[in-house]
Amino acid sequence: MATAAILLIGNELLSGKIRDENGSWAARRLRVLGIDLRRVVVVPDVQADIVEELRRTSPQVDYVFTSGGVGPTHDDITIAAVAAAFDVPLLLDAELDGLIQAHFGERCTDAHRRMAQVPEGTRLDWSGTLKWPVYVMRNVFILPGVPSLFRTKFDAVAGSLQTGTFWLRSIYLNHMDEGRIAALLRGVEDAQLVSIGSYPRFGAPGEWRIRLTVEARDPAPVNAAIDLLLAGLDPQTVIVVDAAVDADA
Amino acid sequence: MATAAILLIGNELLSGKIRDENGSWAARRLRVLGIDLRRVVVVPDVQADIVEELRRTSPQVDYVFTSGGVGPTHDDITIAAVAAAFDVPLLLDAELDGLIQAHFGERCTDAHRRMAQVPEGTRLDWSGTLKWPVYVMRNVFILPGVPSLFRTKFDAVAGSLQTGTFWLRSIYLNHMDEGRIAALLRGVEDAQLVSIGSYPRFGAPGEWRIRLTVEARDPAPVNAAIDLLLAGLDPQTVIVVDAAVDADA
Repeated sequence: MATAAILLIGNELLSGKIRDENGSWAARRLRVLGIDLRRVVVVPDVQADIVEELRRTSPQVDYVFTSGGVGPTHDDITIAAVAAAFDVPLLLDAELDGLIQAHFGERCTDAHRRMAQVPEGTRLDWSGTLKWPVYVMRNVFILPGVPSLFRTKFDAVAGSLQTGTFWLRSIYLNHMDEGRIAALLRGVEDAQLVSIGSYPRFGAPGEWRIRLTVEARDPAPVNAAIDLLLAGLDPQTVIVVDAAVDADA
Repeated sequence: MATAAILLIGNELLSGKIRDENGSWAARRLRVLGIDLRRVVVVPDVQADIVEELRRTSPQVDYVFTSGGVGPTHDDITIAAVAAAFDVPLLLDAELDGLIQAHFGERCTDAHRRMAQVPEGTRLDWSGTLKWPVYVMRNVFILPGVPSLFRTKFDAVAGSLQTGTFWLRSIYLNHMDEGRIAALLRGVEDAQLVSIGSYPRFGAPGEWRIRLTVEARDPAPVNAAIDLLLAGLDPQTVIVVDAAVDADA
């Protein structure tokens, strides 16, 4: 199973000025692609912090997606941090430099041209209809933080990474007492080798209070686990049970 | 300046089933408290991952806040992971055990009573009007993942941690060309020792396209930096400028 991590870069996320949209969006997308997201980390615009996270995470997962810090201003240091993390220099890419100078013309500044610098060994991914490539250094996909750009670029490069499908069903209960069902959940999880989640919430009378989720790579153990859970639960506490569904739906 | 990290624990966050609310909420709250949030990490319900993050993060910041994994079901392993991270045993707390047995009565299960186990050395914080204490192990505040509970408990224990105030002003520009202003931003940031952020977005004609933010611990350098920026920017690109405000407002 392929694995991934997401590195969200930006002081504005840690100060609460801006609420992240990219991490939760990419989590759902990776799920659909059958890629196991192992970690999400938010770090400030500090090169040492970005380097530390890249060095720690890159060897642990198949793909790392970074978000943010790729514009021309002083706080855009992701590219330099990727180069430092892999101990390679930044090189001016002639093709990118030409594109930038053609686009900005007489208004072109050194800050603009800095965007044509890439870590040595970077692959430029022009998948889809991208007007500007995604920089891919080893297993690190460097994406912009602006949500609309992040999504367009993520989908352009990540579509080819699909490795499988998750299957998911849920049971909704009318009480919040997880302690009553804890032993049952553990037993069914161990017996069927599925992943079972239990998510309580406050709700109005008649609404559900616990959502149980059962997930696996194949539908058969999911259905078997649901049957075992229903056999073990008090029927009066069960509000509704999902039919077997593809988690992508 | 006090520093903090947030550790969000739960497979449901990484699979995209549930979008985190606690991290972004706590980021804003910490800002108001004058506490510098250095990192947010999302990890799965895997003890080794939680232990690794706690051991790495706890020595780096003043406060760590965990969210999730504190209920009675098999996937609630945060308490045990905290004990493992600090190499201490789990002990049954007699007071908590008595409360649990009194609450659940005949329906009390071993899974319920497991919630009375705490890492050796844990402080029970009953601040505010809490009906159940927050567990505090060294500098780690262990909070539940259910957002309403997370907020109540965070506010109960974090209010006493306030260490200062951030001051913030913004300038809104009508273009997205960060390259034109990059050198100006860096120069003003260096001259005034403030933190300047630059956040482009797509917008309709007449709406702002770049928000520049200036922040510091004192209002004077914020105001001085705003004046320097306005002197350096093309006046026709400036849509609006915030009056000096307290970042808490």
